[in-house]
Amino acid sequence: MGGGVDVPRSSSYPMVEVPAAVDIVLSQAERVLEGEHVELEEVADRVLFEDVLAQGDVPPFRASIKDGYAVVQAEGPGIYDVSGEVTAGRQSHTAVGNGKVVYVTTGAPVPDEADAVVQVEWTKPAEEPGKIEIITGAPKVGHDIRPVGTDVKKGQTILSAREEVHMAEVGLLATCNVRNVPVYKNARVAVLSTGDELVEAGGELGFGKIVDSNRPMLLAAVGSVGGIPVDLGIATDEEQAVTSAFMEAMLKSDVLITSGGVSMGNKDFIKPLLARYGTVHFGRVMMKPGKPLTFATIEPNAFSEGVPSSRKLVIGLPGNPVSCFVCFHLVVSPLIRKLSGFRSPHNPRVMVRTKMELKLDPERPEYHRALVSWDVGQRALTAVTTGIQASSRLLSARSANGLLVLPRADRTLPVGEEVEAILIGQIL
Amino acid sequence: MGGGVDVPRSSSYPMVEVPAAVDIVLSQAERVLEGEHVELEEVADRVLFEDVLAQGDVPPFRASIKDGYAVVQAEGPGIYDVSGEVTAGRQSHTAVGNGKVVYVTTGAPVPDEADAVVQVEWTKPAEEPGKIEIITGAPKVGHDIRPVGTDVKKGQTILSAREEVHMAEVGLLATCNVRNVPVYKNARVAVLSTGDELVEAGGELGFGKIVDSNRPMLLAAVGSVGGIPVDLGIATDEEQAVTSAFMEAMLKSDVLITSGGVSMGNKDFIKPLLARYGTVHFGRVMMKPGKPLTFATIEPNAFSEGVPSSRKLVIGLPGNPVSCFVCFHLVVSPLIRKLSGFRSPHNPRVMVRTKMELKLDPERPEYHRALVSWDVGQRALTAVTTGIQASSRLLSARSANGLLVLPRADRTLPVGEEVEAILIGQIL
Repeated sequence: MGGGVDVPRSSSYPMVEVPAAVDIVLSQAERVLEGEHVELEEVADRVLFEDVLAQGDVPPFRASIKDGYAVVQAEGPGIYDVSGEVTAGRQSHTAVGNGKVVYVTTGAPVPDEADAVVQVEWTKPAEEPGKIEIITGAPKVGHDIRPVGTDVKKGQTILSAREEVHMAEVGLLATCNVRNVPVYKNARVAVLSTGDELVEAGGELGFGKIVDSNRPMLLAAVGSVGGIPVDLGIATDEEQAVTSAFMEAMLKSDVLITSGGVSMGNKDFIKPLLARYGTVHFGRVMMKPGKPLTFATIEPNAFSEGVPSSRKLVIGLPGNPVSCFVCFHLVVSPLIRKLSGFRSPHNPRVMVRTKMELKLDPERPEYHRALVSWDVGQRALTAVTTGIQASSRLLSARSANGLLVLPRADRTLPVGEEVEAILIGQIL
Repeated sequence: MGGGVDVPRSSSYPMVEVPAAVDIVLSQAERVLEGEHVELEEVADRVLFEDVLAQGDVPPFRASIKDGYAVVQAEGPGIYDVSGEVTAGRQSHTAVGNGKVVYVTTGAPVPDEADAVVQVEWTKPAEEPGKIEIITGAPKVGHDIRPVGTDVKKGQTILSAREEVHMAEVGLLATCNVRNVPVYKNARVAVLSTGDELVEAGGELGFGKIVDSNRPMLLAAVGSVGGIPVDLGIATDEEQAVTSAFMEAMLKSDVLITSGGVSMGNKDFIKPLLARYGTVHFGRVMMKPGKPLTFATIEPNAFSEGVPSSRKLVIGLPGNPVSCFVCFHLVVSPLIRKLSGFRSPHNPRVMVRTKMELKLDPERPEYHRALVSWDVGQRALTAVTTGIQASSRLLSARSANGLLVLPRADRTLPVGEEVEAILIGQIL
């Protein structure tokens, strides 16, 4: 009666507080991933695996700072032949010295024989065509010339290991002629749903079937935080199906996320696998929602020689979609960022003023979905709840960009109270 | 001497303030883009083009709220035959009534003949195998049963046009059996560099050549804000090359971004095209850095019947990489979000306390790259500069997550002053 094979129930695993849970997960993720080289086009929003050295000097040649004339400085003011011009990427005849100068534009290379640039404004056309009069000479050698390597010297470290690469860094890498960029591999995160009642969205539902919503939700979330989603589909409640999906995850991913399979009605074939081949670090977390959150690791070669090839991390998320959402942001998203090399994998935390009363929970600290925005009048960050927080209503997680960290207490927080918020999206 | 064809110089176009420039660009982007249907896997971080209706009831069947026994409520306490069980997705024989009950698990469908559920805790095993004793009967018809459609009714609007789809919305769509999702097409943004001096990163530099850094930087930035980057490569400073790249942009993209080609040394073939075929809305913006920022639109059929097929927007960014960076965030990034359907395309703005003195510019308002973070001690958002703000040093844009909006004034802001910041990345 009432399925469930004879395995340790989750309540037999230690219960931990949320900060401890996050610490345990992140500490197990140390040095799991490797680096790879990617092209400049693929590097945005990733993290450097090694220091990056400039592949060339910037500027790569002596560059004019002004539109003007490349001169031999010692020759001073006077009438000169304009023997040619050097504009961006093009040059004509370029003799300089002995009464000759060359027209140069900003950023263009200064001919070798020249040792200064005189800006156009210090000159005027001479009467004779092809000649120019320098009224004010260059005050010293090197005037208005940027020497080779002024900005960056070839071989100089321009970005360090663990730095994030965003728009500006892409520009800097290109400027320094770097095309192959060493970055952390993105974490491959497999998502598995288990349950005979689950079907894919988009079809007719058979008797007693419901659509699997957690897996599409988690696959989307993995992609949004920079992980590589690996879709393992739905496994039926059979030992063979679950074991085979589990083995696939060991081969194809760094992290396995399961959801569901934890209610009384489902047979749980995951936990016996974790208990047999790995280490279950915790099976319950002191939080609302999300209590039945499980974390385990599988060490290299736990199954057989070479399988898995490196430590794998397994997170069992609650089947309830809102619990699943909250646990993803609290635990999985920092894990993915940590594996992808981010120095600070945590979501940012700020203090916000509440715009509504909040009933606290006397038993568990609560992570309350909210919209965090800047209030122009209050000149402060403020938060409103995104709706009913009952854990079965996914609508309450809609568009939330923050999780309010509400302490356990048997009272109600008044409007305007300062509470901590974990930002899970850009503030409004 | 000193290239440049005979065209209106940028200084002949009106100079506008930054807020006006952004308004002009966004107002020209009204209703340019269309919707499309994408699969659930592709929908994350996009915007709905139409209201979305639930394709099914949630729950799709009468679901048990507890692990327990499906009963005919009127039969009350007593000894019952357990005629079968219904667990997630599976059922055995399910006769209920006339002394028979069925074991059901949480979330499982309640057999049609049953009208209430009695939780396990209100029962105990009977002495005879296959029987159960109900100690406390269900208090009323419907007890511990969620009727069909309790959460969502089929045909109900679950998400509205213009709503953003993130993790939770993906879950909600799946729950309601929606697979094809109507979203705004993402903006296709073509990026073109012009200049004989420019070469691709990664090779040997010829005489006078420098690496094109703006295009990889802009392509990365376009992708990071959800646009579809279209790489038009580098066009040489020849009318034919530029015209042909321009025409390609009209065919392949919604927005064309050009950079460079605006210094004295480059021949500008873009502006004559804009002046001839389109409308130049502004050619200079009152800001530091970034003054030579140009915006134009090309109306449908401006070139020939059917080309372009819809209004195209062209933004000429300054060649200087830091100006390019700042202008991208101030103008291009809101444009891309607007075209992609975002109701609020602007970057969020907050007030921050400065952690260093800031010399203001007496001539132009300045957009100063900074790191914005939450200061635990001050319980406030604070900002530090990312370094030297000289517009030639891309290093100063590195990792900036905010642009401080500094008013024009001939004075120095002291430490601790409150200034406005535009957030261009997640706060730290």
